[in-house]
Amino acid sequence: MSASTPGATHPDLEALQELLDSRPLLPLLPMIYMAWADGELHERELLELRERMTTKLGLSASDQQVLASWLDPQNPPGPVALRYLLRALHRDADALATDERLSLAELGLRMARTAPPEEGSPGEEELRTSLREIEDALGVVSTEAAEHLRPEPREHPAQPPSRNLDFEPDKLGELLDAPHQTTRQMVRDLLASDAFAYNDGLPLKDYRELVVTWLRALADAGIGERCVPEKRADGTRDMSEFLAIFESLGHFDLSLLVKFGVQFGLFGGSIMFMGTEHHHRTYLPRVASLELQGCYAMTEMGRGSNVRELETTATYEHASRSFIIHTPTETARKEWIGGAGTYATLATVYARLIVEGVNHGVHALLVPIRDDQGQPMPGVRIEDQGLKMGLNGVDNGRIWFDQVRVPRENLLNRYGNVSEDGHYESPIPGPNKRFFTMLGTLVAGRLGVSAAGLSAAKSALTIATRYSDQRRQFGPAGAPEIPVLDYRMQQRALLPRIATAYALTFALRELTRRYNSVDPDRRQTEALAAGLKAYASNFALGASQAAREACGGQGYLWLNRIPAIRTDVDVFATFEGANVVMLQQVAKARIGEYAHELNDGNVFTMARVLARQATRTLSETNPLVTRNTDTKHLDDADFQLSALSYRENDLVAGVARRIKRRIDEGMDSFEAFNDCQDHVIAVANANIERFVLECFIDAEKATEEASLRRALSQLRRLFALSIIESDMAWFLENSYVQGAKAAAIRDRVNSLCSELRPDAVAFVDAFQIPDALLSAPIAFADGKAPADAQTQHARGIATP
Amino acid sequence: MSASTPGATHPDLEALQELLDSRPLLPLLPMIYMAWADGELHERELLELRERMTTKLGLSASDQQVLASWLDPQNPPGPVALRYLLRALHRDADALATDERLSLAELGLRMARTAPPEEGSPGEEELRTSLREIEDALGVVSTEAAEHLRPEPREHPAQPPSRNLDFEPDKLGELLDAPHQTTRQMVRDLLASDAFAYNDGLPLKDYRELVVTWLRALADAGIGERCVPEKRADGTRDMSEFLAIFESLGHFDLSLLVKFGVQFGLFGGSIMFMGTEHHHRTYLPRVASLELQGCYAMTEMGRGSNVRELETTATYEHASRSFIIHTPTETARKEWIGGAGTYATLATVYARLIVEGVNHGVHALLVPIRDDQGQPMPGVRIEDQGLKMGLNGVDNGRIWFDQVRVPRENLLNRYGNVSEDGHYESPIPGPNKRFFTMLGTLVAGRLGVSAAGLSAAKSALTIATRYSDQRRQFGPAGAPEIPVLDYRMQQRALLPRIATAYALTFALRELTRRYNSVDPDRRQTEALAAGLKAYASNFALGASQAAREACGGQGYLWLNRIPAIRTDVDVFATFEGANVVMLQQVAKARIGEYAHELNDGNVFTMARVLARQATRTLSETNPLVTRNTDTKHLDDADFQLSALSYRENDLVAGVARRIKRRIDEGMDSFEAFNDCQDHVIAVANANIERFVLECFIDAEKATEEASLRRALSQLRRLFALSIIESDMAWFLENSYVQGAKAAAIRDRVNSLCSELRPDAVAFVDAFQIPDALLSAPIAFADGKAPADAQTQHARGIATP
Repeated sequence: MSASTPGATHPDLEALQELLDSRPLLPLLPMIYMAWADGELHERELLELRERMTTKLGLSASDQQVLASWLDPQNPPGPVALRYLLRALHRDADALATDERLSLAELGLRMARTAPPEEGSPGEEELRTSLREIEDALGVVSTEAAEHLRPEPREHPAQPPSRNLDFEPDKLGELLDAPHQTTRQMVRDLLASDAFAYNDGLPLKDYRELVVTWLRALADAGIGERCVPEKRADGTRDMSEFLAIFESLGHFDLSLLVKFGVQFGLFGGSIMFMGTEHHHRTYLPRVASLELQGCYAMTEMGRGSNVRELETTATYEHASRSFIIHTPTETARKEWIGGAGTYATLATVYARLIVEGVNHGVHALLVPIRDDQGQPMPGVRIEDQGLKMGLNGVDNGRIWFDQVRVPRENLLNRYGNVSEDGHYESPIPGPNKRFFTMLGTLVAGRLGVSAAGLSAAKSALTIATRYSDQRRQFGPAGAPEIPVLDYRMQQRALLPRIATAYALTFALRELTRRYNSVDPDRRQTEALAAGLKAYASNFALGASQAAREACGGQGYLWLNRIPAIRTDVDVFATFEGANVVMLQQVAKARIGEYAHELNDGNVFTMARVLARQATRTLSETNPLVTRNTDTKHLDDADFQLSALSYRENDLVAGVARRIKRRIDEGMDSFEAFNDCQDHVIAVANANIERFVLECFIDAEKATEEASLRRALSQLRRLFALSIIESDMAWFLENSYVQGAKAAAIRDRVNSLCSELRPDAVAFVDAFQIPDALLSAPIAFADGKAPADAQTQHARGIATP
Repeated sequence: MSASTPGATHPDLEALQELLDSRPLLPLLPMIYMAWADGELHERELLELRERMTTKLGLSASDQQVLASWLDPQNPPGPVALRYLLRALHRDADALATDERLSLAELGLRMARTAPPEEGSPGEEELRTSLREIEDALGVVSTEAAEHLRPEPREHPAQPPSRNLDFEPDKLGELLDAPHQTTRQMVRDLLASDAFAYNDGLPLKDYRELVVTWLRALADAGIGERCVPEKRADGTRDMSEFLAIFESLGHFDLSLLVKFGVQFGLFGGSIMFMGTEHHHRTYLPRVASLELQGCYAMTEMGRGSNVRELETTATYEHASRSFIIHTPTETARKEWIGGAGTYATLATVYARLIVEGVNHGVHALLVPIRDDQGQPMPGVRIEDQGLKMGLNGVDNGRIWFDQVRVPRENLLNRYGNVSEDGHYESPIPGPNKRFFTMLGTLVAGRLGVSAAGLSAAKSALTIATRYSDQRRQFGPAGAPEIPVLDYRMQQRALLPRIATAYALTFALRELTRRYNSVDPDRRQTEALAAGLKAYASNFALGASQAAREACGGQGYLWLNRIPAIRTDVDVFATFEGANVVMLQQVAKARIGEYAHELNDGNVFTMARVLARQATRTLSETNPLVTRNTDTKHLDDADFQLSALSYRENDLVAGVARRIKRRIDEGMDSFEAFNDCQDHVIAVANANIERFVLECFIDAEKATEEASLRRALSQLRRLFALSIIESDMAWFLENSYVQGAKAAAIRDRVNSLCSELRPDAVAFVDAFQIPDALLSAPIAFADGKAPADAQTQHARGIATP
């Protein structure tokens, strides 16, 4: 056994004893230690330090000799001697154990007090002055360095920080759950049951089989039927329960979500919205029960976004009363079709409808692609897309059609039909409007992607926030390590995103309400749905990425769920409409409104628009406002909404001018738009952010319970100010804020982060995600996932 | 067969014939078509339009009747009639096929010209005026709408845009390859050989086995030996060839890169740098040949970043001349140890060294963890970490030690040793300096992560750029679809990142040179290496994400390489030092320099620092400069570097003031730093970006060949202005630029994107990444990957 205390014979100990025995050197010990501890002093500095110590304290020759041996650049003290010196400091100066931040001079004074005063030794004030002068030679770092002298033992405090706000997470959760709270809870409970345990690391084939098993369990529980709501008196259907189900599914495996969305949303939805009675009767019950698995074959290899120019043809042959579906070129192959890889037997196929030799544009038809045995139908070729970055539980496939014949009835003929005598007919004469009406079936899909992306982001944020609240790393010297959520950067990575998750929940509720009601401005709703899809999916990518990084290496482990969320959600930026295309769509609608306002030929409108702009300019860019750094003002919803509205209106007017100038100069309108594309996209973002903030403010106002309203109020402040901060260059460039106000907003984001930090866990708990769905061991105080989930994980992972 | 032309009996045709037969209605046909095509007109508007047409053109009663039948809100024309109307327009008006952008009025005029003039019909000027007045009723959208009248057929032009710049990609590539061009080429050739074909979708175990096979192939080709350079006269080793190899490996599978880095960089490096002759002789040849596979066991579960407080102990027992390695708590288990999962037999273990009962801080020892049969050694427990987000070819493991004994010689004893008589000794007395010296072995690792992240980003950018140059989507009406790289947003996503890849290449070369030479300021170099690690890894994440999104769904397919790059590279932000911690390190060093300058007690230095700040303020925030929007000025390297230096210095001074104020007010320095953490991180970014730009400018100046210098010059402009643009809020807030200049910089980034776009492919080709390494089919003009790579892919992917 090695000695547990140093042997008295250790050579370094004699040198130390000399030092400790000298009364005049005692107050210098902390500085002597620090002179070597960092190893940062140059020879010149060491000698200067020695010189100052000697003269300031009037050291005797023998003391000088001892000091020289400890501050000799040519012959540094040994590591053991230094270690013992630190021990001696700890033993003799209780000062080191206090929480006070003392300078080296002050610590030296305390050391001096540990020995009885000697004849002729300087008085305390005199000594303090001398020590301070000596300390200057060590430079400004000394105060920080002194902290390193503290004893090492740390203990973790058991208490979490006490909460700032007094809301109950459950009550806040109920508010987020409305409407369809019961349905949401039912779906969450179902997903938390044993039948839905995660099983990571399966081979593709097995994973896909598992996902279909889950899908069947949903259908068996009657969820499929809820996705086929009855027609209302006006012929529409209320899709809000479907969207609530979809949102709840977003907390679980996203491959299941996508399969569910394809079966009930896209495939089932295409039959509901574009089909007529015959189709509804024939197919919908079998869709709901999953007896019939379908897919939605819109995208082609060559036309990802440009759906209007799909190349697949559906040519009507009157003699046989049938359509001939054909893939005329390689680029016309159907691509990315979820469900087509393995399971789907029937496809909704989008194709150019050709009747009597005339192309009537893209229509949808039901085309059988597999027989009961799962074999491709004659003329149909199918290829699996193979391994993807994520969503590997979805069997995406490519499809080629070689003159495949389907009966006339297979045309989904609500908006375009072939009459019994073989002529094309449609209730919508204009090809453009017809095209966009049929694409309108995608709107629910876009709301669905927004909802699911939001739920996935909430899961990732919950895991990361709970972990950051527990995980400790570094801390003040001598004190316990602090939770990483106490770090400003960690707060900035997570808290504004939690606030955004709340904001998007309210925006989604409002947009769903508009979508499901008699809407005075359907085009605006559709544009906002496209915009929200881009905004929410982009948010989901960013939030899950932030969660990944916030959890460090733990966030990279599949077991902790975040990698699955992050990789699955990545394609949300692409499918159901690539985000840039979606943002262009919302911007075009907004610019169109503006142009319409300006150009409706009505002098009064024109005057009103211009007057509004002028008023705004006068009141909002008034120096009293642009320089107002008062917290009350910054927190004010009116200020925040004005700022976002001002930005939106200014960007719209600006881009309209720029585009018009280019067109006037002879540019094609397409080129003119593209030449301003970054500006166009800025319009879209500004439009959506203003809309989302409006929804948040409305939700806040509608909340009666005071503790909940206070909670929402704080989140809304952080959300709004974070948005303004992230586009501060715009506000400064356009003199909407002055420099001092910009700094004040940044500071306010920081202080809101600090204020909200103690409630961070309560805010994510209000998302009400069942433990079994979170599953990540790091999301739990004991580092253990719910039992069944963990067993499943262990099963899925190869061990050596 | 259906008729290829409409049957003459079609009911809609009669109505059309009436319309076409009326001479006065001819000029109205484009407007009549447009009135229905979009389906946007309300009843009121339709009636108003009809009214205007009637009065302006003085239509006869019969014409009015025909017109009324075509503009009847209660009875819209059939879709077939509209379709035929469009056909008629196409047949009769060649105008529609021209590239000119004509108004509906102008198109109407052309239609009118297709019929012989009639008695009493209005003259052309009169007609034009009337038509224009009618057109107003359709609103501003008509000019854009008119484009939709054009015939549909599109043809793709075969010609790519001709290049703007005249550099040869190969020559530019040589410049990027220096130094060690031959080595880089050798490694790339080796990786492009059949032995290194990708094989995606393998089960974990097989994938890991494949990676070890690759690692062995590298060792067999003598690459391992090159990683153990001879000691130079001064005892140091030139690691630049190792880093060149590592950088080249970054284009291939990153699991191999990490395994390589662990074996030769961390494990081999720890022996080289912390071991002494005995260790070098005993181990290095077997490390180089891969006869001995090792791992680097630093990280513990509880201490990811806070390495100084690792809990594992190595207690010296003099009687047996051995160390006892022990894991005292669960949080002390070694975690994330690459190679430990399956293959490593020897580990460099970091542990608190306890000698004679005294803790001398963290030291490294060699500890056998497996026997020759691959079984854990007695007292060693190992667990596989399981599935990760990426890098699944790396066998990461956890290790627990239960009183494991190793001989005294196993301490890597260059910086801390136990003497023959059992006392601790070290050439570095101060524990801080000793700790950081030992951690200095991580510096090469951080340079390596920067290099590899950069290479991975280059691969992703190459694939995305080549694809974006080929892939077409949308376009002006009637014209061919345009390559997606012609879109402003696509350019903005890719081109500044290509420029940054060049910038980082030069910064890395310079930092590697400093690291390998006698360095007057080693601390600064180490801080910059930490900072560059954070900056380059963050860049790699962003660039591979941008590439993923730029390729749409194709970027989500594993076959196209980007998902592998994106998911593998994600953890680069975490390992070898979490990015926030790295940035704090570089910021602290920079703030320390500043404090030192200000506080060295020398009045002259102080005066110099203040004077420098004053001069800067006077000359740079002069309105002539802050408002200068001249392109020549914006492009100027001096302006760009001044801007980044000004920002850096101002941020440093500002944060130093803020931290000092907090400390003066009684805050602990740790808390004070944390309270300003966002500001501290901003200092770090500013510091690194200034350094990178300096390196880029130096490289540009050193380039003699004019065409290459011009190319670099354009890239440097885009890089620098993009950086300034992305932090524009700072420059505006601090009045370094005025609003107009901010707008000019944004415009200049846009115009540089346009200017560089035709050379984008040449710029990525200059990265010289072999086709076999890119492998992605979308990166090749024929959509086909190199044969062998594709075969491999097909083999790895499950097909139905």
